[in-house]
Amino acid sequence: MIFLDNASTTQIYDSVNKKIFELNAQNFYNPSALYGKAIEVSKMLQEAKDNLAKNLGTTGEHIIFTSGATESNNLAIFGLSTNKKDAEYVFSVGEHPSVFDVANALKSQNKIIKFVDITKNGIVDENSLLNSINQNTHLVSIIHVSNETGAINDIKRLCKLIRKVNPKVIIHVDGTQAFGKIPVNVQDLDVDCYTISAHKFHGPKGVGALYVKNMEKLKPIFFGGGQQNNRRSGTENVSGYVGMAMASEIACKNQLANYEQIKAMRDYVKQEISNNCKDFVFNEAENNSPYILSVSFKGIRGEVLLHMLEEQDVLIGIGSACSSKKQSNRVLENMGVQKDYLLGSIRISFSSFNTPNEVKIATQKLIEQYKILKAKMSK
Amino acid sequence: MIFLDNASTTQIYDSVNKKIFELNAQNFYNPSALYGKAIEVSKMLQEAKDNLAKNLGTTGEHIIFTSGATESNNLAIFGLSTNKKDAEYVFSVGEHPSVFDVANALKSQNKIIKFVDITKNGIVDENSLLNSINQNTHLVSIIHVSNETGAINDIKRLCKLIRKVNPKVIIHVDGTQAFGKIPVNVQDLDVDCYTISAHKFHGPKGVGALYVKNMEKLKPIFFGGGQQNNRRSGTENVSGYVGMAMASEIACKNQLANYEQIKAMRDYVKQEISNNCKDFVFNEAENNSPYILSVSFKGIRGEVLLHMLEEQDVLIGIGSACSSKKQSNRVLENMGVQKDYLLGSIRISFSSFNTPNEVKIATQKLIEQYKILKAKMSK
Repeated sequence: MIFLDNASTTQIYDSVNKKIFELNAQNFYNPSALYGKAIEVSKMLQEAKDNLAKNLGTTGEHIIFTSGATESNNLAIFGLSTNKKDAEYVFSVGEHPSVFDVANALKSQNKIIKFVDITKNGIVDENSLLNSINQNTHLVSIIHVSNETGAINDIKRLCKLIRKVNPKVIIHVDGTQAFGKIPVNVQDLDVDCYTISAHKFHGPKGVGALYVKNMEKLKPIFFGGGQQNNRRSGTENVSGYVGMAMASEIACKNQLANYEQIKAMRDYVKQEISNNCKDFVFNEAENNSPYILSVSFKGIRGEVLLHMLEEQDVLIGIGSACSSKKQSNRVLENMGVQKDYLLGSIRISFSSFNTPNEVKIATQKLIEQYKILKAKMSK
Repeated sequence: MIFLDNASTTQIYDSVNKKIFELNAQNFYNPSALYGKAIEVSKMLQEAKDNLAKNLGTTGEHIIFTSGATESNNLAIFGLSTNKKDAEYVFSVGEHPSVFDVANALKSQNKIIKFVDITKNGIVDENSLLNSINQNTHLVSIIHVSNETGAINDIKRLCKLIRKVNPKVIIHVDGTQAFGKIPVNVQDLDVDCYTISAHKFHGPKGVGALYVKNMEKLKPIFFGGGQQNNRRSGTENVSGYVGMAMASEIACKNQLANYEQIKAMRDYVKQEISNNCKDFVFNEAENNSPYILSVSFKGIRGEVLLHMLEEQDVLIGIGSACSSKKQSNRVLENMGVQKDYLLGSIRISFSSFNTPNEVKIATQKLIEQYKILKAKMSK
């Protein structure tokens, strides 16, 4: 099986999985208990926060452990929302559902929501963004790397532009497809909060984190035992959090080398598609993550191609896995992908677990199956 | 190390830990993806829901998987709250912080909150409860088994009494310390929602569930990819949820035998304390879970006794682990435990992993250390 749907999830590092098993078996104590064994577990959690923080360019006191990117995104936006009646919230239309649907939830609470366009390349439209920012803007949420196309938003530049208009804006960035894959330094980017998800960089599922610059501003969404300085109650998923920190270490240490390897594979696939297919468009930005390749073919159905490739032991995606069952094409539609291309969209996404040889085989099969399908469709 | 703080957390079943490891390694696909391997994972999750549901006396469509009891309690109460201005919410003062602090959060949102007394035995005071219920009562939340004393509330009876006054009341029960230890059948109890937590019955941490009778009434607290029928978005913690279901199978299958074994151990400890100590009180109900034994000794400090026992390789708790760092004695105080006994409270909590022999050793050490401490204190 050749797995090229790594934007939906990744296989866990074997060493991380072993660590989780070992912690579950041996260090099972509740970190809130008072005896030494529990305090050891509590220290282990703090160390995990510190290590994860270091890889984000910050320190442990700015990190909240969560149950994943969805909770992190919800916590950031709800937790930093305000009761001020004239406060405005700004979201790009290229956001993941776990941000976009929070925007819609705020809207249904009669908050003022503004949506910002994305360009045909999938990045946030700067003019549209700047037109939406004013002195009432309370919070802006922008995705770092698009989960559908891999388009990279220049967060550092966008933060500067936003803060020039209104320095008080809270900027949240969903870095689910960025962290561990491209350099992320929250201080250098100058964001107020930043979401990450462990299972996107070979960590466990059900585990994520949120960087928060000013913790005292954040209202919790869970109330209870007061864990994590009262910001996120609930007995900590100790092995999951330690596993996430460990996965972040491995991913970030090898980030540059992985990036080059994956870029070469992505470029190879692009070249082969260009040489062998016609009537297609790569949905990509000038600055695009090589981890994701989105292609829209005219006159075929992406879902059919997905299943034909599955028969050939190659797994790919169409759009975002989370929304695939909803059959939403919001992001590609907003990029202006034409109707006769839209349904023919596929997403090929890589990880450092992929080898050049398997990518070569998969590409050959992709082109074969594309040709078979194309021939059928044009009959 | 003799572990007698099982109300704070339990050691994972080895078979469950192995299953989690295996699923992480092999069945890592995102259950929302469209290919067969992902659909297999999605089916596995559904099966886990069905199996867990069966052990709760219900069916899979009534179960939401969460990140633990804190999320389940928050989801139940916030998710079933209403905007009706005259709606009243009723909570016992014996609730866990993850219910009690949600009550306080609702209060700060200007909702009408009523707190119900508990008796000196730690159960909900029926008169106080009935006095608080009227035609405006919207939701009542009651703990099934007290995490501090093990007192069992007669949920079936309380539900009948409440529904007699107002049949429309939504009844939520926090079953964190009950499920897997005493019989739980949500239909027989006649509750509207019921919280469970995996790490309290030898499952993994960071994983829980909520039974909900009428799903369509529940507003989500996370918005996003629409997983779990839009009730709880976020990529599922597949191995954690399957592990929880598996742990529930083992715990429920052996529930009766475990109960008898633990009751014998609890009775032994009680007897030894009665024979060897003085000026103490057992904080317990007529119908008390044998899994938890709460004792308050006059004139000593529970925390000091805890650390002395730790030196002897015996781990116990004082009050609830979650709130132990907060040093709250709300529950025992509300039971009327006298001031000179309050600080001398300890909680001994059992699991099926404990053996009669280790409990015998631990009890001997408890009495030894108690006597040493008592002698010191009375100097």
